Amino acid sequence: MTLGQAVDELVTANRILAREGVVDSFGHVSIRHPDRPDRYLLSRARAPECIEADDVMEFTGDGAPVDAAGRKPYSERFIHGAVYDVRPDVQSVVHHHSPSVIPFSVTGARLSPVMHMCAGIGARIPTWDSRASFGDTNLLVTNLAMAKELAAALGERPVVLMRGHGCVVAGASLREVVFNSIYLQLNADLQMKAHALGDITFLSAGEIAAVLSTRGSFTFERAWESWCRRAGRPYHARP
Amino acid sequence: MTLGQAVDELVTANRILAREGVVDSFGHVSIRHPDRPDRYLLSRARAPECIEADDVMEFTGDGAPVDAAGRKPYSERFIHGAVYDVRPDVQSVVHHHSPSVIPFSVTGARLSPVMHMCAGIGARIPTWDSRASFGDTNLLVTNLAMAKELAAALGERPVVLMRGHGCVVAGASLREVVFNSIYLQLNADLQMKAHALGDITFLSAGEIAAVLSTRGSFTFERAWESWCRRAGRPYHARP
Amino acid sequence: MTLGQAVDELVTANRILAREGVVDSFGHVSIRHPDRPDRYLLSRARAPECIEADDVMEFTGDGAPVDAAGRKPYSERFIHGAVYDVRPDVQSVVHHHSPSVIPFSVTGARLSPVMHMCAGIGARIPTWDSRASFGDTNLLVTNLAMAKELAAALGERPVVLMRGHGCVVAGASLREVVFNSIYLQLNADLQMKAHALGDITFLSAGEIAAVLSTRGSFTFERAWESWCRRAGRPYHARP
Amino acid sequence: MTLGQAVDELVTANRILAREGVVDSFGHVSIRHPDRPDRYLLSRARAPECIEADDVMEFTGDGAPVDAAGRKPYSERFIHGAVYDVRPDVQSVVHHHSPSVIPFSVTGARLSPVMHMCAGIGARIPTWDSRASFGDTNLLVTNLAMAKELAAALGERPVVLMRGHGCVVAGASLREVVFNSIYLQLNADLQMKAHALGDITFLSAGEIAAVLSTRGSFTFERAWESWCRRAGRPYHARP
Repeated sequence: MTLGQAVDELVTANRILAREGVVDSFGHVSIRHPDRPDRYLLSRARAPECIEADDVMEFTGDGAPVDAAGRKPYSERFIHGAVYDVRPDVQSVVHHHSPSVIPFSVTGARLSPVMHMCAGIGARIPTWDSRASFGDTNLLVTNLAMAKELAAALGERPVVLMRGHGCVVAGASLREVVFNSIYLQLNADLQMKAHALGDITFLSAGEIAAVLSTRGSFTFERAWESWCRRAGRPYHARP
Repeated sequence: MTLGQAVDELVTANRILAREGVVDSFGHVSIRHPDRPDRYLLSRARAPECIEADDVMEFTGDGAPVDAAGRKPYSERFIHGAVYDVRPDVQSVVHHHSPSVIPFSVTGARLSPVMHMCAGIGARIPTWDSRASFGDTNLLVTNLAMAKELAAALGERPVVLMRGHGCVVAGASLREVVFNSIYLQLNADLQMKAHALGDITFLSAGEIAAVLSTRGSFTFERAWESWCRRAGRPYHARP
Repeated sequence: MTLGQAVDELVTANRILAREGVVDSFGHVSIRHPDRPDRYLLSRARAPECIEADDVMEFTGDGAPVDAAGRKPYSERFIHGAVYDVRPDVQSVVHHHSPSVIPFSVTGARLSPVMHMCAGIGARIPTWDSRASFGDTNLLVTNLAMAKELAAALGERPVVLMRGHGCVVAGASLREVVFNSIYLQLNADLQMKAHALGDITFLSAGEIAAVLSTRGSFTFERAWESWCRRAGRPYHARP
Repeated sequence: MTLGQAVDELVTANRILAREGVVDSFGHVSIRHPDRPDRYLLSRARAPECIEADDVMEFTGDGAPVDAAGRKPYSERFIHGAVYDVRPDVQSVVHHHSPSVIPFSVTGARLSPVMHMCAGIGARIPTWDSRASFGDTNLLVTNLAMAKELAAALGERPVVLMRGHGCVVAGASLREVVFNSIYLQLNADLQMKAHALGDITFLSAGEIAAVLSTRGSFTFERAWESWCRRAGRPYHARP
């Protein structure tokens, strides 16, 4: 994939996340730079629904813009670099505030897969509370110290919740993190509905492992084509 | 109905199920082959919202493509053949993951008609759990052995739930299974709302029987015209 | 208003109720015939979203089409005639299955105004259960006997619920019944949300009376203009 | 900003609030007159979704139209003048009936920020009940006496709820009150979801203060661009 194609896919990912209600005017998605693995690509500070290719900036791992050209970066870009730094397997990161996910972050209710499509969110999702180490802040992860602690809370998992704020989703490809972001939201919705009906049977650890070991890119691809159509973006197969 | 018309109706059914939120990028609908009752028609592996006539493939009862022509089939196509095999009355099958239905599959809460339009889902809906016989799997019904057990759980009923996965809806026509899929979703929504308000009066067995014995194709037809319009598909009356 | 204008408004009412989610492919709205008060105007059996002026038929009070011209009437048209017969003040009737309203019909939970815009639904809404007098039926009101009992349950009120089925809304004008249908749905939604939070303070009888005594056609008019726009219909002021 | 630009922004605000579901056919938003701080600008009585520049009227603080030119004002315009009168810091006021907010007004459940984006609604939101001083009314604030009491209940806060009616949101700019109106609605949604899951951790007083002290116009600006796009309105940066 060329850099231009990568940027184009990143724009599409922003539009998809907006269309599917995972992000509103806030939240962001990045990819590791295809040629410079110590850098990442991320839009300037703009609502995901409005982002164009020219908005995409290049950042070094500590969040410095390589060539800002007058563009204002997201104040929370540090999240992305901190995750790429400690997770060489990660090629893409989403930070979002899905309204289905936040209730779990402020209640401590367990969020865990109830459906096979949602297995990629992991069996147990931790919640990071910025107040524990940093006290009363505006909750934004606006420096590397906070971002590193958040990345540590994520650990080797695909998802970490942020109390009163949102979550981070990290994975091996842009399509995977978009997929897991959307199905994280769905799993949260399903759990809230099921919770009102009675005790929930979650997927077993063995089932989660079986889904992950048998899932290939064709699953992400099928969803991606459909989400592109809904978001009004051209679809380019990446089989 | 010619084979071409049948294929066209199948495309419409996919678009309707996507438009009404019954399927997302996954789930599928088939019809028994109009001329070869031991075969069925089903799209290649693609999101229902994107399906075109050229995507529709022909399969033998055991899930083998008659002429794949490079098209990749759904891994869960076996569900369809297994149901057609044991249910000669069935002309169409939907497998879907409606987010309203799944909570019932993971809680054991009773799902039963609360409204006359929903009587076609049957008085009691069983839940099949793949783990009981097959242990920890990815929950996908990717072979005939699983599909036959699922079809046996369906029995003579119109609907069976699949724990942590979704459901199967089987019926005498494409319009009937689409209708029952959409009203299964509505009934699940209605029950979740009613459950929070107090004890529910379900339809009686006699009422369900009365609805089924008096319902004609004009009911399906009226809804089909409206769903075609919403899905941006031409409507062809089949009175 | 000419007969043509009345028919045009009736088409608009159907489209509005569909757009606002009060009706799906089923449910219907009628007006008393402007020149023949013993007759009423109602579409042929068609989904509200699809109705055109040519679909509107004229019926006598007992549900006989004056000139069917090959058009199939709704099987439940008797509801309309029965209400017009005993309620000379009523100029328009809606029968609908709003998914927010049905949960109240199957649980016996009280449905009563919690907000000033919803006062028009009346302080206490009765529920009619077809099974009490007619036993196990398909729940459809397909004859005058059932319709008369339903109209008696409505009495002098604006709304009656039908157990496991839907409701009837009757009022002094087409705009009023559409308004009260939409705000009945909203009130049901509000009550379900509030019920989960704690004990509800309903409007007092005095407040309901005050809303009704001060509400003029300008209230219906303001909403009607907006709903016409959303439904893609031209707006004609009727001050 | 010229008067024409201010009017244009006010039209946009109306469309945004309608598009985001904060207002339906009712509710209104005003701005203090840019050149005459004792006056305010507010549309004639019309649904927010339909408002054009020519609908915007000028009012004196006591609610008298400066030049009605045949336009009928909102009966509740007094709310706006009463707030501007006692709150020199306030440049814009919204009165709305968000269906997420009303349940809190009729149950007394605490409404308080659970997420950083919602901190602007204030730590504690009072509820004003018109019945306490004015008895059984139609709940509308149609005179200065009621409006002054409501403004007193608001005090120095950004939001006050109105029992069985809606709320008032006041702030230092049009973009701020639109932002806080939309995030008030989101916070109410989040709280209702979280309430069903368990005990809620609200933002601390220190966190709310930290959000407010660090939030700049770029936050409102980012959301405004996105909301303009969704509402089909041109976006004009006001950095």
